[in-house]
Amino acid sequence: MTARRLSGKPVADEIRAKTAHMVENLNRDGFKAKVAVLLATKNEATAWYVRSIERAAAQQGVECQVLQMPEAGQDQLVAAITALNEDKSVHGIILQTPLPEGVDTAALVQLIDPAKDIDGANPLSLGRLSVGQPAFAPATARSVVEILEHYRIPIAGQHVAVVGRSAVVGKPLAQLLLQRDATVSICHSRTAQLADFTRPAAITVMAVGRANLLTSQEVADSSVVIDVGTNVDEAGQLVGDVHAASVQPKVRALSPVPGGVGTVTTALLIWHTVQAAAKVCESIMWRGEPMTTCR
Amino acid sequence: MTARRLSGKPVADEIRAKTAHMVENLNRDGFKAKVAVLLATKNEATAWYVRSIERAAAQQGVECQVLQMPEAGQDQLVAAITALNEDKSVHGIILQTPLPEGVDTAALVQLIDPAKDIDGANPLSLGRLSVGQPAFAPATARSVVEILEHYRIPIAGQHVAVVGRSAVVGKPLAQLLLQRDATVSICHSRTAQLADFTRPAAITVMAVGRANLLTSQEVADSSVVIDVGTNVDEAGQLVGDVHAASVQPKVRALSPVPGGVGTVTTALLIWHTVQAAAKVCESIMWRGEPMTTCR
Repeated sequence: MTARRLSGKPVADEIRAKTAHMVENLNRDGFKAKVAVLLATKNEATAWYVRSIERAAAQQGVECQVLQMPEAGQDQLVAAITALNEDKSVHGIILQTPLPEGVDTAALVQLIDPAKDIDGANPLSLGRLSVGQPAFAPATARSVVEILEHYRIPIAGQHVAVVGRSAVVGKPLAQLLLQRDATVSICHSRTAQLADFTRPAAITVMAVGRANLLTSQEVADSSVVIDVGTNVDEAGQLVGDVHAASVQPKVRALSPVPGGVGTVTTALLIWHTVQAAAKVCESIMWRGEPMTTCR
Repeated sequence: MTARRLSGKPVADEIRAKTAHMVENLNRDGFKAKVAVLLATKNEATAWYVRSIERAAAQQGVECQVLQMPEAGQDQLVAAITALNEDKSVHGIILQTPLPEGVDTAALVQLIDPAKDIDGANPLSLGRLSVGQPAFAPATARSVVEILEHYRIPIAGQHVAVVGRSAVVGKPLAQLLLQRDATVSICHSRTAQLADFTRPAAITVMAVGRANLLTSQEVADSSVVIDVGTNVDEAGQLVGDVHAASVQPKVRALSPVPGGVGTVTTALLIWHTVQAAAKVCESIMWRGEPMTTCR
């Protein structure tokens, strides 16, 4: 026996289809969705990632404006975010990390208008999510839920072990799962016996960033395992937090790395942008104003 | 054998002593801490609670201004919160619930300046807490941690079952415990088998508001149990979420109801107010301005 492969491709395809449908509606109303990416690093891996966002936007007829600001200081970044908040033609803002040294990231993300915070970077978004108010979750956290829901894996009433407590994955994911009535155990590097949580769990999500941490020892036959890790091993290969060779033959289902969660995140960023745009569009129509007021 | 009684009184006493010391320092600098309570209900139980805050403030030499606004509407409450945010003599703001029917509580709490949000009502406070930025937690959630720390009950590396996922207790408490390196399981009404989590847990916190829910069946001999519940039973008595008669003879330690968590919260609200005032005081001194600039 081998685990069912929870590929990200059909999940992303489904999101792209929803997005396309909504873009069509928006265009019919003379409305164009737009995402802005603040890029303040010359890091090549980051530039590659931002190009993948640009490509995804272009494919869906969504505008993508990349603001190249390498070595920008705090004041310039504050000004840039403030301008994007005020720019009615921009519906989504991504403040791409890493930021230049010496920049106060916490102060910057808190400036992002929650209505445009399509990657859930502002702690207000996380707080709103936690108390059940409308907010965008970080795309990676949200991708995990999209995969589970696409493959009809029950969440309500299930025990989910979330391994990792980062602000971008573990913590917002725990909130998304609680919203869906899961019982959530949040584990991390200080958890004494990981297996005490992952073995009884119906679903285990690995999001710690340690290559091959989860082995067949820590999972049950009935486990569904979602791998959020993206690590580069000694051979230069992209590997997850799950030791796939040992886990795959044992468990019920496993999302691969690459080809799993990572495949979904970019599609979600564009989907969030289009959702944010639709909300603006709705409120303009509600007020009976012409669409041109938003440009 | 019977459980060690984790009384709230010495915990509150310790907090009051810290508060008194800080008030003394503030007064020496010609500075007076002040908390404002917005009271928009005529509910007698609520009025009683607010009087207990007034008394606690008075005992510590902290000003307490209660704004009686029964039946106030949204606009009046928005105006009141905005004025308190701007009032430099006010360091802590409590928007007391329940609010009049028809009022949008979510919109109101989001207005409270996080620096004055001493009961952690603004979701931004919860978000900031979650990502490890300075913020006040709701006093009840914080009380649980104060009790554990006062009685030197280890948290780091321990499994804590938090039963309840409210925005005022369960969710912020989970964040406070994660900060302290606990492995946290968040359980609730949809958790299939509560005992699966509470029996193996080193610490169980009950915060669901269901009288006598936790019995000896769901705990181990080694359990430490904190009872946040305040329910009124058929005989009109205040009882917790823990069936104390069956749990007390079995477990290692138990916080009583009444006399446990509830005893600590008011002291914490005043402590938070004084902390907020001290921060303002510090920044004034830092800028080299006279203390009178803050009145």
